[in-house]
Amino acid sequence: MISIEARQKLIEIVGPENFDDTKVGLLVYSYDATPQFQAMPEAVIAPRNTEEISKVLKLCNEYKIPIVPRGSGTNLCAGTCPTEGGIVLLFKHLNKILEIDEENLTVTVQPGVITLDLTIAVEEKGLFYPPDPSSMKISTIGGNINENSGGLRGFKYGVTRDYVLALEIVLANGEIIRTGGKLAKDVAGYDLTRLFVGSEGTLGIITEATLKLIPKPETKKTILAHYIDLEAAAKSVSKIIASKIIPTTLEFLDQPTLEAVEAFAQIGLPTDAKAVLLIEQDGPAEIVAKDIERIIEICKSENAVSVEAAKTEEEAEALRTARRAALSALARLRPTTILEDATVPRSEIARMVKAINEIAEKYKLWICTFGHAGDGNLHPTCLTDTRNKEEIERVEKAFEEIFAKAIELGGTITGEHGVGVMKAPYLEMKLGQAGIAAMQAIKSSLDPNNIMNPGKIFAKETRKRVVVSK
Amino acid sequence: MISIEARQKLIEIVGPENFDDTKVGLLVYSYDATPQFQAMPEAVIAPRNTEEISKVLKLCNEYKIPIVPRGSGTNLCAGTCPTEGGIVLLFKHLNKILEIDEENLTVTVQPGVITLDLTIAVEEKGLFYPPDPSSMKISTIGGNINENSGGLRGFKYGVTRDYVLALEIVLANGEIIRTGGKLAKDVAGYDLTRLFVGSEGTLGIITEATLKLIPKPETKKTILAHYIDLEAAAKSVSKIIASKIIPTTLEFLDQPTLEAVEAFAQIGLPTDAKAVLLIEQDGPAEIVAKDIERIIEICKSENAVSVEAAKTEEEAEALRTARRAALSALARLRPTTILEDATVPRSEIARMVKAINEIAEKYKLWICTFGHAGDGNLHPTCLTDTRNKEEIERVEKAFEEIFAKAIELGGTITGEHGVGVMKAPYLEMKLGQAGIAAMQAIKSSLDPNNIMNPGKIFAKETRKRVVVSK
Repeated sequence: MISIEARQKLIEIVGPENFDDTKVGLLVYSYDATPQFQAMPEAVIAPRNTEEISKVLKLCNEYKIPIVPRGSGTNLCAGTCPTEGGIVLLFKHLNKILEIDEENLTVTVQPGVITLDLTIAVEEKGLFYPPDPSSMKISTIGGNINENSGGLRGFKYGVTRDYVLALEIVLANGEIIRTGGKLAKDVAGYDLTRLFVGSEGTLGIITEATLKLIPKPETKKTILAHYIDLEAAAKSVSKIIASKIIPTTLEFLDQPTLEAVEAFAQIGLPTDAKAVLLIEQDGPAEIVAKDIERIIEICKSENAVSVEAAKTEEEAEALRTARRAALSALARLRPTTILEDATVPRSEIARMVKAINEIAEKYKLWICTFGHAGDGNLHPTCLTDTRNKEEIERVEKAFEEIFAKAIELGGTITGEHGVGVMKAPYLEMKLGQAGIAAMQAIKSSLDPNNIMNPGKIFAKETRKRVVVSK
Repeated sequence: MISIEARQKLIEIVGPENFDDTKVGLLVYSYDATPQFQAMPEAVIAPRNTEEISKVLKLCNEYKIPIVPRGSGTNLCAGTCPTEGGIVLLFKHLNKILEIDEENLTVTVQPGVITLDLTIAVEEKGLFYPPDPSSMKISTIGGNINENSGGLRGFKYGVTRDYVLALEIVLANGEIIRTGGKLAKDVAGYDLTRLFVGSEGTLGIITEATLKLIPKPETKKTILAHYIDLEAAAKSVSKIIASKIIPTTLEFLDQPTLEAVEAFAQIGLPTDAKAVLLIEQDGPAEIVAKDIERIIEICKSENAVSVEAAKTEEEAEALRTARRAALSALARLRPTTILEDATVPRSEIARMVKAINEIAEKYKLWICTFGHAGDGNLHPTCLTDTRNKEEIERVEKAFEEIFAKAIELGGTITGEHGVGVMKAPYLEMKLGQAGIAAMQAIKSSLDPNNIMNPGKIFAKETRKRVVVSK
């Protein structure tokens, strides 16, 4: 509970216009993009600068008030749901691109910048910021850093972590630290930069970031390959990589996803195919042409029913947009959509998709699968209805089996969505008790009063996942 | 002090043939490649497997015995000097390449594998492990991971950190954890993998690592450009990058270094040049040819006196070897060589080299500078003599000013050598008190008894650097 005294001090720090504890104001921030999770905060604040955030954290630390930093709330792990009440902290005043440094190939931003705006701004200078999470039109870069977001170009270019060079961070005790620099090499002490990337707001608040850029690839080509069976698609992926080609994008969609996307986007996708690969390569024109030619050969030799290259950039963009729309397309079909991101070594994709289908059948559930084949990062998506308690119990069991299978195949319970509340009960499968204990020790050392986004990453006693909080 | 009881238990764990506390045995491991640091350990052990290491750490934790994991001891920060006594732990039994996975593009190794052996083994399969520290013929991969080693290819390909996908770690309490996987994407909790990379053996002992590989570049070309002034060389670097070319290697040598290298290697380097750039590009043949042509144009337009392309692979290798030999070449000239690695944003290189020269002149010291221009990672190298106390005092003052200048220009006190004992007194310049406090909190949380390589990274009261310990 926020005392009257603490409330008054908060208002003094951020100004009354940046403090809201009206019922409607709180309701808006009681949930994020994750289905099934809702909890009311006690206040929503929008500090104007780092110093205000420092004062807010000092106050929260003194009064033991939970604080949840929140970008656009597009995460899928209930990472920004204020499950323990307290304050939701918004970055609407920290939303500027501070500098694009063309000599050092960096961009310095405040956390509230929208990912797509950043992407566009640097591309105008002939530079490139590769991470492209599906939510990039809405998500903030601060959210991306806290979740270590992936995207469709991850196979070739890596994830958000690979592009964060420096951070300004306000620690739980209110101290402001700066990590890293415009430096490719920096080994002055522990790698706090990367410890904070993906820490889901549980260790401190990121207030500024310097990101690495690369030259914008000269050209890009897109192809679509259809298969009548899954194994053939998986074999194509293996063979492309065995040929020492690293495509930018290697996306996989199964038949149910394909049908849903086509119904949604209507761009003439072959809904009779059992699996589709969306493959892109970028780089110098002559290399892209050579790689694409070789990829087409490989897909054909692995029994692709058809392989089509996008003829125009509009056609290519339509294909990419269709893939990005997969979640929205599936979400229309039943009341509740639970999107997971079990991830396996790329060599295990066919086995994993087969296992998902068998598990879906066993529990009589509707599960569609799409994802990033190059990364082994799959998105089994269950179309269900939370009002049906009996069905939801089956969903729980099915996902537990899916995660166990991913771990068995050398994979992980989450490739790019984060742990949040949703995956916390399963974290031990991946890390073991000793691994979780090590992470909890780090958490306690930096946030002894557990004010930073409490209840995330580390599970309480319950093993149940789909729970409406509070 | 290791008690008789603890000694007996250690021998039981590793076997008498893997335990040594003879005076001569201890002496060998009383120093590493860092000049000026020596301290006697109380025992040297070589466990045969992870389980033995776990037992050793449990014992050390119980008896509060310092333990220093050591690869080949090639580090330049006294990181493996047992300054607080205790045990030096060797990896001579953990020296196997366990698997090269061509489908997932990974290699799994034990920490004692020599870096060059790893490089050769994967290249035989058409794969490529980019990090190439100058010590790679002798250094172990475990040492590289603990120091987050860089190398000559860092500008294009990044450093060791960027290639570590998974670790097996024995924590200070003896628990064995596994982080990451053969996975490009994994956000299951905090990034322990990267927290341990570069942690200099202060958080636990790495007993296995899975590293990312990439396809081996098709071809490589090497050129050498000579300049009569430093600014022209720096401008060439800026202009190459502004042209959106990212060369594999962009090495810089100043005139004194050049002279020393030529005297050592005798390959006909132009010793009258004030600065030399060694530039390499790799990749598909047609792109390399185009890039190299453009780089030559740029160097010429920026007043390079001459630009020569290596005509044969032998010629190119001679140039690379000469650059790698810089430290050895300089080390011949005076009794003591102190090699530093102050690092700045690449745009600040000319300013930094100018400042180094001015500081050398001010303190009447012989400082040669070479390094990785693409990364802004410079190696000002002081040729001195520790027996001359008055001169060494000037060396101290000069390096303190060099570090201060690097920080002022947005850089860091160490780009790739690590903190160890040597840089510990300067760490606060980079991180501030709050940054150091955060790192110390993490250290204490994972190693509460401070048994893991104690005395490294975090300075004691002294600010003096060149001190013979104990």
